[in-house]
Amino acid sequence: MEWNPYAGTCPTRFVLDRIADKWTVLLLGILAHRPMRFNAILRELDGLSQKMLSQVLKSLERDGLVTRTAYPTVPVSVEYAITPLGQTLTATLEKLRSWAVDNIETVLNAQREYDGKTLGQEKA
Amino acid sequence: MEWNPYAGTCPTRFVLDRIADKWTVLLLGILAHRPMRFNAILRELDGLSQKMLSQVLKSLERDGLVTRTAYPTVPVSVEYAITPLGQTLTATLEKLRSWAVDNIETVLNAQREYDGKTLGQEKA
Repeated sequence: MEWNPYAGTCPTRFVLDRIADKWTVLLLGILAHRPMRFNAILRELDGLSQKMLSQVLKSLERDGLVTRTAYPTVPVSVEYAITPLGQTLTATLEKLRSWAVDNIETVLNAQREYDGKTLGQEKA
Repeated sequence: MEWNPYAGTCPTRFVLDRIADKWTVLLLGILAHRPMRFNAILRELDGLSQKMLSQVLKSLERDGLVTRTAYPTVPVSVEYAITPLGQTLTATLEKLRSWAVDNIETVLNAQREYDGKTLGQEKA
């Protein structure tokens, strides 16, 4: 069998959907540096709800990209860490983040130009 | 001003959301090789609806990653091409696609193991 993310039902499509995702990019970007507790992660990911973070972490754990470790403290503390498999992705994800930062002004200029043209067409 | 995709309202977050997206990854992956007509693209992207493809192409055009050229044939034919800015992304996006293909079996094993454990916990 040939794996092919261009085929809608190929499992590689689902994996691509998980890794080509802004929250995965941002989350693995911080876990790459150190394991973290849930609330600490939540504070770093501005705009992500508690519920969504739970879902993202659970999916990444299921895919083998993140581990979840519960410590028997009172209350229980839970720490998330990136796995060696997750680490194989971090350099590529870092490139996506830095592309966004390095090219943001070019993109914003393109958007202004596009919006100007579109507005012109609507007026014409 | 410091650009930072971890800040929810930073424009870089929106750019990251566009480029860290499975359809962007798959679409720029095919346009990287040659310009294509709408219907030809649609045939390559299994599972993407006509409406969604229009939206993705429009967003990528607005961001300066893709150009849209209409030729005055009957009926009008429209061709989409990747821009030089879009080309600066393709090597990184290619790495995401090949990561999915190279690691799919490891991910599927992790999923089976996770589901087995979760099922065990539910039975216990």
